Amino acid sequence: MKFRKTCSAVVFFIVAALRPPVAAADAGMYPMSELNRLDLAAAGLEVTAADIYNPDGTALVDGIVKLGGCTGAFVSDQGLILTNHHCAFRAIRDASDPEHDFLRDGFAAADFGAEFPAAGYTVRITESYRDVSAQVLAAVTGDMDPGRRTAAIEKRMKQLSLDYEAAHPGKRAEVSEMFPGESYVLFVYTFLKDVRLVYAPPRAIGNFGGEQDNWIWPRHAGDFSFMRAYTGPDGEPAAYSPDNVPYRPRKVLQVVRSGVGSGDPVFICGYPGRTYRQRSSFYLEHLARYTMPLTVDWYTWQIEHLEALGQGDRSRQLALASRIKQLHNTAKNYRGKLQGISRLDLITRKRAEEVRLQEFIAADPQRQRLYGHVLRDLEGYYRDLDREMPYEMWLRFLKRSPQALQVALTVWESAQERQKPEDERDTAYMDRNLDQTLQRLQVQAEHFDAGADSLLLAELLRRGGAFPRSHELEPLSRVLGPEGSAEAADMLAHLFKTTTLMDPQFLAAAMAMTPAQLRRLDEPFLNLAADLYPEYLRVKLEGKRRKGVLDPLRAALVDARRGFLGGRFIPDANGTLRFTYGHIEGYSPRDAVLYTPLTTVGGLLEKETGTPPYALPPRMRELVEARDFGPFADSDLGGVPVDILYSTDTTGGNSGSPVLDARGRVVGLNFDRSWEATINDFAWDHSYSRSIGVDIRYVLWVTWKFGGGVRLLDEMGVGLAD
Amino acid sequence: MKFRKTCSAVVFFIVAALRPPVAAADAGMYPMSELNRLDLAAAGLEVTAADIYNPDGTALVDGIVKLGGCTGAFVSDQGLILTNHHCAFRAIRDASDPEHDFLRDGFAAADFGAEFPAAGYTVRITESYRDVSAQVLAAVTGDMDPGRRTAAIEKRMKQLSLDYEAAHPGKRAEVSEMFPGESYVLFVYTFLKDVRLVYAPPRAIGNFGGEQDNWIWPRHAGDFSFMRAYTGPDGEPAAYSPDNVPYRPRKVLQVVRSGVGSGDPVFICGYPGRTYRQRSSFYLEHLARYTMPLTVDWYTWQIEHLEALGQGDRSRQLALASRIKQLHNTAKNYRGKLQGISRLDLITRKRAEEVRLQEFIAADPQRQRLYGHVLRDLEGYYRDLDREMPYEMWLRFLKRSPQALQVALTVWESAQERQKPEDERDTAYMDRNLDQTLQRLQVQAEHFDAGADSLLLAELLRRGGAFPRSHELEPLSRVLGPEGSAEAADMLAHLFKTTTLMDPQFLAAAMAMTPAQLRRLDEPFLNLAADLYPEYLRVKLEGKRRKGVLDPLRAALVDARRGFLGGRFIPDANGTLRFTYGHIEGYSPRDAVLYTPLTTVGGLLEKETGTPPYALPPRMRELVEARDFGPFADSDLGGVPVDILYSTDTTGGNSGSPVLDARGRVVGLNFDRSWEATINDFAWDHSYSRSIGVDIRYVLWVTWKFGGGVRLLDEMGVGLAD
Repeated sequence: MKFRKTCSAVVFFIVAALRPPVAAADAGMYPMSELNRLDLAAAGLEVTAADIYNPDGTALVDGIVKLGGCTGAFVSDQGLILTNHHCAFRAIRDASDPEHDFLRDGFAAADFGAEFPAAGYTVRITESYRDVSAQVLAAVTGDMDPGRRTAAIEKRMKQLSLDYEAAHPGKRAEVSEMFPGESYVLFVYTFLKDVRLVYAPPRAIGNFGGEQDNWIWPRHAGDFSFMRAYTGPDGEPAAYSPDNVPYRPRKVLQVVRSGVGSGDPVFICGYPGRTYRQRSSFYLEHLARYTMPLTVDWYTWQIEHLEALGQGDRSRQLALASRIKQLHNTAKNYRGKLQGISRLDLITRKRAEEVRLQEFIAADPQRQRLYGHVLRDLEGYYRDLDREMPYEMWLRFLKRSPQALQVALTVWESAQERQKPEDERDTAYMDRNLDQTLQRLQVQAEHFDAGADSLLLAELLRRGGAFPRSHELEPLSRVLGPEGSAEAADMLAHLFKTTTLMDPQFLAAAMAMTPAQLRRLDEPFLNLAADLYPEYLRVKLEGKRRKGVLDPLRAALVDARRGFLGGRFIPDANGTLRFTYGHIEGYSPRDAVLYTPLTTVGGLLEKETGTPPYALPPRMRELVEARDFGPFADSDLGGVPVDILYSTDTTGGNSGSPVLDARGRVVGLNFDRSWEATINDFAWDHSYSRSIGVDIRYVLWVTWKFGGGVRLLDEMGVGLAD
Repeated sequence: MKFRKTCSAVVFFIVAALRPPVAAADAGMYPMSELNRLDLAAAGLEVTAADIYNPDGTALVDGIVKLGGCTGAFVSDQGLILTNHHCAFRAIRDASDPEHDFLRDGFAAADFGAEFPAAGYTVRITESYRDVSAQVLAAVTGDMDPGRRTAAIEKRMKQLSLDYEAAHPGKRAEVSEMFPGESYVLFVYTFLKDVRLVYAPPRAIGNFGGEQDNWIWPRHAGDFSFMRAYTGPDGEPAAYSPDNVPYRPRKVLQVVRSGVGSGDPVFICGYPGRTYRQRSSFYLEHLARYTMPLTVDWYTWQIEHLEALGQGDRSRQLALASRIKQLHNTAKNYRGKLQGISRLDLITRKRAEEVRLQEFIAADPQRQRLYGHVLRDLEGYYRDLDREMPYEMWLRFLKRSPQALQVALTVWESAQERQKPEDERDTAYMDRNLDQTLQRLQVQAEHFDAGADSLLLAELLRRGGAFPRSHELEPLSRVLGPEGSAEAADMLAHLFKTTTLMDPQFLAAAMAMTPAQLRRLDEPFLNLAADLYPEYLRVKLEGKRRKGVLDPLRAALVDARRGFLGGRFIPDANGTLRFTYGHIEGYSPRDAVLYTPLTTVGGLLEKETGTPPYALPPRMRELVEARDFGPFADSDLGGVPVDILYSTDTTGGNSGSPVLDARGRVVGLNFDRSWEATINDFAWDHSYSRSIGVDIRYVLWVTWKFGGGVRLLDEMGVGLAD
């Protein structure tokens, strides 16, 4: 079921001997296996570890789902899911057209039948997990070269998933790497494919403050929406069908309107993406000098030019909106991280810690033999990588930013990969995932903007001129002519004029073809992709080789750090289910300034200017001014609370996680971190690391008063009587 | 429980920061005559009204002086004055040259002999005052037309001053209008003319944060300097002479290093300039629609273009620095006021109050007869004024912004005015003030920048093109040719090439000449001034006529409001000595944000970027990092406090006022208000009106550690022993 009992008992014993109970508000995104060693009562929680996670029964986490890259929570026994507005953003956009602008006006299904199918959305519910490190690592031998080692591990991870699925029809299984090269866990999921949009407020509420306020406290965004999971009439997961019925979750989280106040304990279960706290200073320096600044630079260029394209064309704006939002989000996050790394002098601090770590290693001959070389080797590894990065980042942007090229490369790669056996393919091209991959391409095709694509491709080619031309890029030169020449511009125009790629029907057909069949289509972007593919393949294989070098070093570093840090060691987030806890509390962002942890509708009006991102729907202003708050006002604050701030440890992927009170009831909805906490991914600090959520009272008040969604309040069992 | 403690500590901290002070301070800049009706003890003060002001003995106000447009305090028995860096700014600049840049490096006189004469600086000490309303108003009769009425009052005010001075040699007397058309007070001053610069920190400390932080909390400016007043060897006021000796003040304020903390009561005596709280909504609307936006627009243009001129030329930058600083200050102040007026919806609120006032008036036939017409008449008055404003503001800018024209108009006006008897002249041209007026012109001449002047004059002429040309401006057209023509540009170039005006010797001679003699000089700017003068005179006389209309209306409004407001009525500030009190306390500028009332040297380092205005002298950074705080650190804050925030009622002119503790000891030095409090001049509100000062501990620490000014600490009797 979970970690073998003997093993976890031993671990627990050692752990108990080495450390005092974890103090409240420590950094940590704890795997469920760690829950037992936390003193939840001391942190003010009334729930027990078994109330949160119970492999032998039903617990809170059974009501918490992974929704694409976000988290969500079941809040009714009819599969109603509470998640963020920004998590449902793509679905709201897809439901919109220039006549029905649900981003602008909000979306409210009057009944089940009017709920809008959210293509490409899936829901995963963690059923169980167990350690499979031994099985995975049995696939490698000490004398394997790094590239083969990586490939062997990946293959074994897939085999284990497929084996499990074969033995358990209707379940999805996935092996997650907890510590690369060291620890692997098989997660079993229920996997629902029919997800629908139920209610979303207007973007002016859901994303009030827009990019200006993103990562910022005080915040006033009503970043919530409701979706619903459906199954076939038999209750089994099924693709969308009008005959499907609402999913009956094993566990429903209780939504309460009682709310929270400053100092109250809260906790969060969710699917945080990635953190890098156990990584070396050399990795951090590599990110700070290459990956992040190069990304910020290119994303900022794209934002500026894509926004200019959308000027005065609402339909184009809609099509580009989601993309621009994502670019903004990442660029601002990276800027925050870079500022944090510099402000906290984090590389120097990590370096100093590594000096102490090296001393700790050297103090014991056995440790010295096992780990003595690790930091030195990592330094060498990243110095080598530094040199390749500008070119490889550019290549990555070329593959990702112009959508036609991205789609063409996916189609071509799919044809290549499908020639291999299932367990040797890249995950996206395994038979079980091909539908989803196609659906993703078709969504891209539907929103294709040739003008935007052409702009990005031209700019990237211009930038590519800065790298010494190598034979690997010869195909690109051949197709496009010398960079910057009139000929190149003509070729680019020709490419976009003659392509038939971005057609959903065409894509469906192409995704079933062999490489030879694709070549015969003579589609210009597919031709370009075929020509470029060897260079991408080379880089991909080089990546696997690097991973083969890096993983044992990382595994050794993690081992050494575990010994060095003792009780303070917690594994980095990796997209799997985690628990974090803290309190509703403010912080001091700078000298003589304090942030308090609840904002109110009064602050909405303070910020309102009438122009986006600070333009409220007029009716919203009226509702606030009328103080028609029903039972949702906080008497101390004198109005409905809007957003809340708390000292949990979260990262991307925790978006949409319910914020739970001491008794495990939903009091908020996580959606962001404070600016000072973007550095979280590298170091958590109680003095400034804060997460931001919507107060459930605002969710309920807006749904009820603004959205007319009393049926949803009824469904959640939230009464309106005083 | 660990968290509970932390939490309640935080809560306590927040509560302490926001705690409504004991007997919350009322808005008010109280004249000394009002002291007796205040309950000082209830406000937490240990001093009595007689300790503060005592016409029959010595009191605190005897140690407080008017220093130009600022306030200062005697802090040693050798005439040492503590005031703001920005009040001494002009003196520091005048002491500087490109080789000795005291703005950049700070100024520290090693001994008395090295103290630098601050030309143009004067010190006034209020000796006594008495009501002379009856004498002044005896000069007017009910049937006088408005223009004559104003002239008669002004003449009588001057007569009374001159009579007093004739009877009391060595004293200066001045009649101040407390309520126009109603109440007049004769102030008697000791007037010292030899003032010297003693110590000023580098601008990077004194104005740390520069324009960015101006009007902003949290603040970290060390806005202080020391000056010294000198008298002749006989102890009588005298012009500068190396033989002069330090002035022996009647009262010396005690400087203490004990400091203040959140919640402590404080008070301020000083010379606040002007407030407008008793004025009508129509006046406020006139300012908000014309005076302030037109000024902001023109000042912003000047700042931008004068800064561009100074690029890369340090000596020119120095010459323009004071001017740009002043423009910035006013523009930002007006922007804050405009924002405050709009945010608080102040015009609407004032209008609503006036509706109630009108009802109060109408409720009594006698009141109705006296005041029933007043608001209606004021509305008509400002509607008429609105129409004239754009042209008159332009004319005012034309007179004030290009310095050559300003100086020329002053010289010409002086020649005209000197033909009248002393008590009919404008104040600046009375025999007793001519020296000072000339000195002011000569200082301008020394820093004259023909390029800047030519730029401003050309732009104003361009803007003048927007007004319909009238015969009054014909002289300007004649001199300069049609606006925008090549001829105009040539004329402008010719003007600046041939002028001899901006020469101190020339000015001294010109200021003694008659109009006819000036005409014979054939100086191009004087010619232009002579040609323009009739139009300025027309506008000046029209101004007196308006004042004659307005003053009785304002007097009636004040009367009506006094009845209406009862005990809440306090006269507006008018540059005379006032008392205000409050507490050291923070505020909430917006939803979920609290400001606490003390900043620290830690915050200096947080803000430091290495580039102005956030570039500290390297040695300052070292001193902070070395935590070499001597006895000046605050143990709660963990460092030397830098600036303090308190709920007194201040305005421009209070700059340099000592901040006094419950026992009347100097604990800080007032220099600014918070952004939200720029609206103060129209309405004071305890929730956001705050003044900003330098903490005396920072003054002492910087003077001692950075400035090497231990002699000054000795002189003030501040010990360094723990």
